Amino acid sequence: MSTKNCNERTLMDYCPDIKVLDCTMRDGGLVNNFAFTDEFVKDLYQANIKAGVDYMEFGYKASKEQFDPKEFGKWKFCNEEDIRAIVGENDSPLKISVMADVGRCDYKKDILPKKDSVIDMVRVATYIHQIPAAIEMIEDFKKKGYEVTVNIMAVSKVNTDDLDAGLKLLARSSVDAIYLVDSFGYFYPEQITKLAKKYVDIAEASGKVVGIHAHNNQQLAFANTIEACRNGVSLLDATVSGMGRGAGNCFMESLLSFLKNPKYNETPIIDFVEKHMLKIKEEGAVWGYDIPYLLTGILNSHPSTAINFIKDKRTDYGKLRQELMDME
Amino acid sequence: MSTKNCNERTLMDYCPDIKVLDCTMRDGGLVNNFAFTDEFVKDLYQANIKAGVDYMEFGYKASKEQFDPKEFGKWKFCNEEDIRAIVGENDSPLKISVMADVGRCDYKKDILPKKDSVIDMVRVATYIHQIPAAIEMIEDFKKKGYEVTVNIMAVSKVNTDDLDAGLKLLARSSVDAIYLVDSFGYFYPEQITKLAKKYVDIAEASGKVVGIHAHNNQQLAFANTIEACRNGVSLLDATVSGMGRGAGNCFMESLLSFLKNPKYNETPIIDFVEKHMLKIKEEGAVWGYDIPYLLTGILNSHPSTAINFIKDKRTDYGKLRQELMDME
Repeated sequence: MSTKNCNERTLMDYCPDIKVLDCTMRDGGLVNNFAFTDEFVKDLYQANIKAGVDYMEFGYKASKEQFDPKEFGKWKFCNEEDIRAIVGENDSPLKISVMADVGRCDYKKDILPKKDSVIDMVRVATYIHQIPAAIEMIEDFKKKGYEVTVNIMAVSKVNTDDLDAGLKLLARSSVDAIYLVDSFGYFYPEQITKLAKKYVDIAEASGKVVGIHAHNNQQLAFANTIEACRNGVSLLDATVSGMGRGAGNCFMESLLSFLKNPKYNETPIIDFVEKHMLKIKEEGAVWGYDIPYLLTGILNSHPSTAINFIKDKRTDYGKLRQELMDME
Repeated sequence: MSTKNCNERTLMDYCPDIKVLDCTMRDGGLVNNFAFTDEFVKDLYQANIKAGVDYMEFGYKASKEQFDPKEFGKWKFCNEEDIRAIVGENDSPLKISVMADVGRCDYKKDILPKKDSVIDMVRVATYIHQIPAAIEMIEDFKKKGYEVTVNIMAVSKVNTDDLDAGLKLLARSSVDAIYLVDSFGYFYPEQITKLAKKYVDIAEASGKVVGIHAHNNQQLAFANTIEACRNGVSLLDATVSGMGRGAGNCFMESLLSFLKNPKYNETPIIDFVEKHMLKIKEEGAVWGYDIPYLLTGILNSHPSTAINFIKDKRTDYGKLRQELMDME
């Protein structure tokens, strides 16, 4: 992974170091229990290639001892043969990633040596207090031959001293990229600027790059993603139509139309929306900005309360706010 | 109107010069042909007072010679008696505004002297080439005793020389505030920064303030509004649930939760959403982010093509894109 950042990130220019990662199946999988049809996955793979997307995340590498494969779609586990059934040997410029949660992945067994896998990159998702465990995983994956990122979740709940200490530990690890993750959709662009600068300073000093993964609780996922980009973050997560847990993510179609590198093209993604996303919504998948997510966002809370509120078809927002305040 | 801006607009502080304007009935009226029930309007008026909103725009002062009152709801015309039926003498801190379009308003007749009206502010909406006509209206309204703003529409289509010339003319007028208007939802935050600084420099030098009115085509209305605010813009437009033409506007509930002045409170607005906005959507009013508006936004086009596309229940986005490109 290149660590070279463009000096001047102006709107009309583009920076070759910027990479886009599609995590529709991973974050969107949390919406529909990973029940994507093979046609959906094949078409998304082709759309991403045509659109110039750099990485496509197929899902999680979850432990089959902790999670019953009968209860989830196959992309919760991302078996090697399931990915290959879609991509073959992946003879394309699109790289493939999977996510491995600290404590929820039998990684020693389930992450194969790179030479036996079509996967290019493993993303380690960690809470701040799990960073030592995350580093064990990072080193294992690097030794196996993968590109590796680390995604520190729920940073809006982490105090600055702990974050600084965690970032320092990660800077000393072999990880290629460190992700700024706004799990709760809490941050405003001006906070993202500050955090992005902090992450970029620490990462660059140790030859790493920084990524951003934003949530749309306050309709700021896209704005925060391009704000981070403006401040040197170079690995940008997005999902088609923003599909992702709760309020969802940065919209891929917006991000690609923003980026000026001529290799990016939002049209194949918009065609994919027409063919698949309208249907998936009609069939009942629910995500995207709504008042309950605004409330969890501004109150810096996990979206699960809002997800259940919406699932129960409740609209008593005042009561939800009270419930959230009681949980603080 | 105070021209004094806060020096340091940090997130945790607040600036007493910031004012919030609710234009749900005016921009939202373009969605439902101004057919709001009296209960809706009365509840919105009360919600705005409780929420600390500074101005509430009731609608347009449209010419009854050009527009047949039988074809529109009453808030297209904002008769004095209709406003008074809601607010009485408006014994509240909430000020009342109306919009007057250049060339579509019999303003000499229809805008009464302030002493005979419960309206506090008139907002003059103008295209760049109409600025001399706008200035005639501004001077008339100022003489009649109103606060007056001027809203230069479709700025994303205006070349910089013309904009500079127009702003200079307006700086010499008696207008109190000049609005930066992103009619097509075209601008990214970094462009808003640049424009906001330009407007603020010119306005402050002549003792005026600057406002912002954003559209949500790229889901950036809220982000652009707070970005403008960060750069000295002090009159912030928003609508409940973003209700407004096409992709709609900056969400009032997001904006109020962002602002740190303790006088602002988003809860009365969220209660209003629960009571009225869910119903108005169920009854068929359509607005808000959607792919067709993304396309008109990124192509810097008027939203009307997208509005018709959605009204016709079309989803052939590729064809829409082609149609929009052919119109360039």
